[in-house]
Amino acid sequence: MEVAQVLCMKGGNGDTSYAENSLVQKKVISLTKPIIEDAITNLYCNNFPASLCIADLGCSSGPNTFFAVLEVVTTVDKVGKKMGRQLPEIQVFLNDLPGNDFNTIFKSLPKFQKDLQKTMGAGAESCFVTGVPGSFYCRLFPSKSLHFVHSSYSLQWLSQVPRGLENKGNIYMASSSPPSVLKAYYEQFQSDFSMFLRCRSEELLGGGTMVLTFLGRRSEDPSSKECCYIWELLAVALNDMVSEGLIDEEKMDSFNIPQYTPSPAEVKCEVEKEGSFTINRLEVSEVNWNAYHGEFCPSDAHKDGGYNVAKLMRAVAEPLLVSHFGDGIIEEVFSRYKKIVADRMTREKTEFVNVTVSMTKRG
Amino acid sequence: MEVAQVLCMKGGNGDTSYAENSLVQKKVISLTKPIIEDAITNLYCNNFPASLCIADLGCSSGPNTFFAVLEVVTTVDKVGKKMGRQLPEIQVFLNDLPGNDFNTIFKSLPKFQKDLQKTMGAGAESCFVTGVPGSFYCRLFPSKSLHFVHSSYSLQWLSQVPRGLENKGNIYMASSSPPSVLKAYYEQFQSDFSMFLRCRSEELLGGGTMVLTFLGRRSEDPSSKECCYIWELLAVALNDMVSEGLIDEEKMDSFNIPQYTPSPAEVKCEVEKEGSFTINRLEVSEVNWNAYHGEFCPSDAHKDGGYNVAKLMRAVAEPLLVSHFGDGIIEEVFSRYKKIVADRMTREKTEFVNVTVSMTKRG
Repeated sequence: MEVAQVLCMKGGNGDTSYAENSLVQKKVISLTKPIIEDAITNLYCNNFPASLCIADLGCSSGPNTFFAVLEVVTTVDKVGKKMGRQLPEIQVFLNDLPGNDFNTIFKSLPKFQKDLQKTMGAGAESCFVTGVPGSFYCRLFPSKSLHFVHSSYSLQWLSQVPRGLENKGNIYMASSSPPSVLKAYYEQFQSDFSMFLRCRSEELLGGGTMVLTFLGRRSEDPSSKECCYIWELLAVALNDMVSEGLIDEEKMDSFNIPQYTPSPAEVKCEVEKEGSFTINRLEVSEVNWNAYHGEFCPSDAHKDGGYNVAKLMRAVAEPLLVSHFGDGIIEEVFSRYKKIVADRMTREKTEFVNVTVSMTKRG
Repeated sequence: MEVAQVLCMKGGNGDTSYAENSLVQKKVISLTKPIIEDAITNLYCNNFPASLCIADLGCSSGPNTFFAVLEVVTTVDKVGKKMGRQLPEIQVFLNDLPGNDFNTIFKSLPKFQKDLQKTMGAGAESCFVTGVPGSFYCRLFPSKSLHFVHSSYSLQWLSQVPRGLENKGNIYMASSSPPSVLKAYYEQFQSDFSMFLRCRSEELLGGGTMVLTFLGRRSEDPSSKECCYIWELLAVALNDMVSEGLIDEEKMDSFNIPQYTPSPAEVKCEVEKEGSFTINRLEVSEVNWNAYHGEFCPSDAHKDGGYNVAKLMRAVAEPLLVSHFGDGIIEEVFSRYKKIVADRMTREKTEFVNVTVSMTKRG
């Protein structure tokens, strides 16, 4: 599985699941708001320049793309006003893989600019948006050119499925996965995240800040239920179809999800090893699997948590499944998955765990 | 006619005329090569920074997009090597309107990077490409953030058709246009180009350079044949169809091309009025209407100059014609146009005139 096929899925491109994804992401960004605010305040204290370069890495294409940017830019405005500072010009770099739908992002730029004007008033016209195609596991920007890097719900995607996995019956790390599988996943995470940190440490100016939110876990066990359960239930649906002869067993054995949901300690360990950044905050938060949990449901269908979660996960998993199994199985897989998820949700607490880290480039 | 519909046509988006456009543009960029080389040499002499920001304005989407950038970046490399300087990191900003097909540009980025590697060897990986959606008649970049601005075959497009034209029987400035039409076109050019200069003068650093190539003219007469004839022949085809009842006369009367092809003196006048730039070079060159003039013809059809020119002009004019007249007339218009053009080309010299100006930001 190539990184190109993986990373663009955050926003649920071209799918009906925008609403669910959008809600989950909005909740995550709201949860990380105080951390972003702190990071921006720090920037103002560090000889804030007249012109600020901000990057959102893994921006995807959909309603979430500008939601994150709007949050960051209005925070720059709000904190600046509180500190009696003049609003800087802001250059926003939206990054995702070259296959991402940048055309749609760019066409919705006028709406973003209107939203910005509504929130900020004058000054909104000093925000310049650009698109940067490329993998964030490579260099994307010139040296010392960025002040602030934001990334939400993207960095859990690995650059590839770890090589040589023997993970029969599973599609991700699971309690029944052999230790070699857990090791291979962890090593892929270490290699990818350390590369990410090395690239960003060259691109950020001294005093520049990053706020990164991963899908993660609290436990030190990488096969812990809190991060793996949602994939285990998808594996249940797939295995049922294997036993009924609807999916080829060998195909199933070679399918694995290129994701790693690190613990705070694992994130901290890589940051310290790389050595260019000081961690300011490292926090864990939760959001319910069901995007509409505690929210107004726009239709009766949305009152069914299984339906909501299956839709959300479909946006994420469908491209991976299609590229491996073809598109013939998709309806059946998600119909089964919906029932399995709905059943479990009535019996246990089902939450995504988010790990957010804020760090400042030394020097 | 909105600017959004106009400016994206340079490259002949989504049409079969890429080859013709591409050839004409390549010829133009080859003609301006020594001017670009001079401009880059000047930059090196002016305390060249470790990281260079270059913008290509009106980049379009097609084979031409990266051709211009490749020319500029390899010139930076070549001049640098000649002067014994280390290659800087280069951030390239590709600009066009938000409706431009940036997805296609971004997907062909790997090919560009390979081409760059072939020409430059090591150092190619230090070229970072980004996309900037927006009109170049507005601010696109933070203040003092650019070192070099390039634009080729885009600035002749006005931001809109001048208002209130009474230009019966014509679709552009013509010898039979009343003086009010010539005046309205000139004023629109002045207003647009001075706005362009004001925006760029804020965005360029002191010592930064622009090389701009317009479709233009040598003569001081704005209705001169050298720039208007190609449109007059299109008007002949349209008027024939009006007289045969195939096109509504009122529709024809309200159709005008949002273009202005300035003389060197008119360009100089606006640059001097704006006051932030020193002109280094101001030159005129010509390319034949027929892209295959003096070139290898890939097929028998291409030996027909009328065919080549009609194809080239179709890529440019079709979106304008469709948005005004609908798409029902297109085949007929260009079939007639091809014959008219072929006839005239056998009898007279038919060339596009290019005006290229190189200027440096003061201070």
